[in-house]
Amino acid sequence: MTVLILTCAEDVTADMVVQRLNADGVPVLRVDPADFPRTVGLAAVHTAGGPAGRITTDRRTTDLRDIRSIWVRRPGRPGLGAADQPAWTALESDHAWYGTLRALPGVRWMNHPDAHTACRYKMWQLSVAESVGFTVPATLLTTEPSAAERFAADHGPLVCKSVSGRAPDDPPLALPTTAVPADADFAGVAGSATCLQRRVDKRYDVRLTVVGDRMFCARTDETPAGLDDLDWRYADPEAVRWRAGEVPPDIATKVTAFMDRARLAYGAFDFAVTGDGTWSFLECNASGQFGFFELVAGLPVSEAIADWLGAPRERDR
Amino acid sequence: MTVLILTCAEDVTADMVVQRLNADGVPVLRVDPADFPRTVGLAAVHTAGGPAGRITTDRRTTDLRDIRSIWVRRPGRPGLGAADQPAWTALESDHAWYGTLRALPGVRWMNHPDAHTACRYKMWQLSVAESVGFTVPATLLTTEPSAAERFAADHGPLVCKSVSGRAPDDPPLALPTTAVPADADFAGVAGSATCLQRRVDKRYDVRLTVVGDRMFCARTDETPAGLDDLDWRYADPEAVRWRAGEVPPDIATKVTAFMDRARLAYGAFDFAVTGDGTWSFLECNASGQFGFFELVAGLPVSEAIADWLGAPRERDR
Repeated sequence: MTVLILTCAEDVTADMVVQRLNADGVPVLRVDPADFPRTVGLAAVHTAGGPAGRITTDRRTTDLRDIRSIWVRRPGRPGLGAADQPAWTALESDHAWYGTLRALPGVRWMNHPDAHTACRYKMWQLSVAESVGFTVPATLLTTEPSAAERFAADHGPLVCKSVSGRAPDDPPLALPTTAVPADADFAGVAGSATCLQRRVDKRYDVRLTVVGDRMFCARTDETPAGLDDLDWRYADPEAVRWRAGEVPPDIATKVTAFMDRARLAYGAFDFAVTGDGTWSFLECNASGQFGFFELVAGLPVSEAIADWLGAPRERDR
Repeated sequence: MTVLILTCAEDVTADMVVQRLNADGVPVLRVDPADFPRTVGLAAVHTAGGPAGRITTDRRTTDLRDIRSIWVRRPGRPGLGAADQPAWTALESDHAWYGTLRALPGVRWMNHPDAHTACRYKMWQLSVAESVGFTVPATLLTTEPSAAERFAADHGPLVCKSVSGRAPDDPPLALPTTAVPADADFAGVAGSATCLQRRVDKRYDVRLTVVGDRMFCARTDETPAGLDDLDWRYADPEAVRWRAGEVPPDIATKVTAFMDRARLAYGAFDFAVTGDGTWSFLECNASGQFGFFELVAGLPVSEAIADWLGAPRERDR
């Protein structure tokens, strides 16, 4: 039974997982869907038991029924770069590729595309977090300057975040979480939807990486008073030190409930921990990076991912 | 309690539903998300019970908690036409708009975006159809000319279909279902994923429109032998006559199972009925048109949609 890994060629984090699967003797097919149909072939016949057929690369041919799990890591878009009718070719290729994979019965996804899509919607995610019992900072999405002003008066000091995460432009733009000054002019809110959130007076940051039912906790040192490190993703890497941390049992229970409700097999949670020990839920990134945390905090995440991907399908247990 | 209808301004089919809702005294907010945030405003605060706030158009303001159902009809893309960073603005607007709506608790969707997305994948759809007991013609998705040749030898005569439906180009391209000649050269299959299907020797076509648990059946007259009307969508409208038809009980049972498994509230099913009375499943279009069939076959679909949208939310029953 083969593990199908969908990612681009330059993905060194995926290499860590592939090495582990190789060491365990688990067959791996690594494909960038962007190469379909240029150098990657597909033949899938609809049958009563799901699609039958094969994926063919320049290195090997894999039977569709032999796929036990699919890791959607950093895939390129299918049908990229066709000379004729590129938009339609991309759409046809996407539907052939993912339609076939979606139809494979009993395959385990990390993560299923629908679960990944749903989790990217911040307001939905905050609702799920709240429903499983997490503490969630007051958050506003708006295009109305007056609503932003009222929210600042009620909940300030605030931070401003991107609504969607990274921008699709090339090169991609990213908006670090930034402090909103007390005298901010919110007129610009009318131009594009804006996400404002109560600033959490945190003592330290937690990145909790979840793989199936295993949790890997990294935390920063306590923040010296006065240091402005709102968004560690953009801080000086030398200034933020990460080490392995502990997950309180009630947080673990809520994380498990979140993963179930969001139908995720992998998630990277960010929490801000305050002086009274409260873990404030900031975000769950269904495709968050883990290589950095594995390295600096000694967390065996890639091993856990390989183990999850290499486990038998439900129908074969 | 308000019905939220997401569609473009020129949607006369939506007008039919709005008229019925108006006659029933059900409040309606009709919005094209393409107008957000230019002329449509949003303010949504995350709270323990889901988003609280409002949508504001030039005509009215609607409380988010007052929305009972959402009809995703023919919406434009949020954030369309921003002057600065249009790609990012579109993404931020999409996430603010649909993230807020996705987080509304207890709201009934026709159809939920994730269910709509999943249903567009043809191979997945055929698997669901097969799993609920429908007869499905042999179907191949491939980029391999040799696989196409073998499939033609095993299952011909064949038809060729679009994998994805309509193309995203402007104006959109569409590929009618077309007959594949017996001596076809399949070399071009390598250029873009191709969908080939055994040609059903049909006597007549059925379009079954499903709204919640109500079914509206339209059928053509029996096809005179020799008339080539493979794809009625592109046939001479004068040559294809539609009238109301009956749904056999076993087909109705399977349709209900399909709607449940696909999590659809609305679906337009196409069947080809053969001489022995077999209904071959061709497709379920989660956003298929119904205005034409309402008109020519006298099927009260818009009334059923209005009734479904106007029904109380589950939490209020």
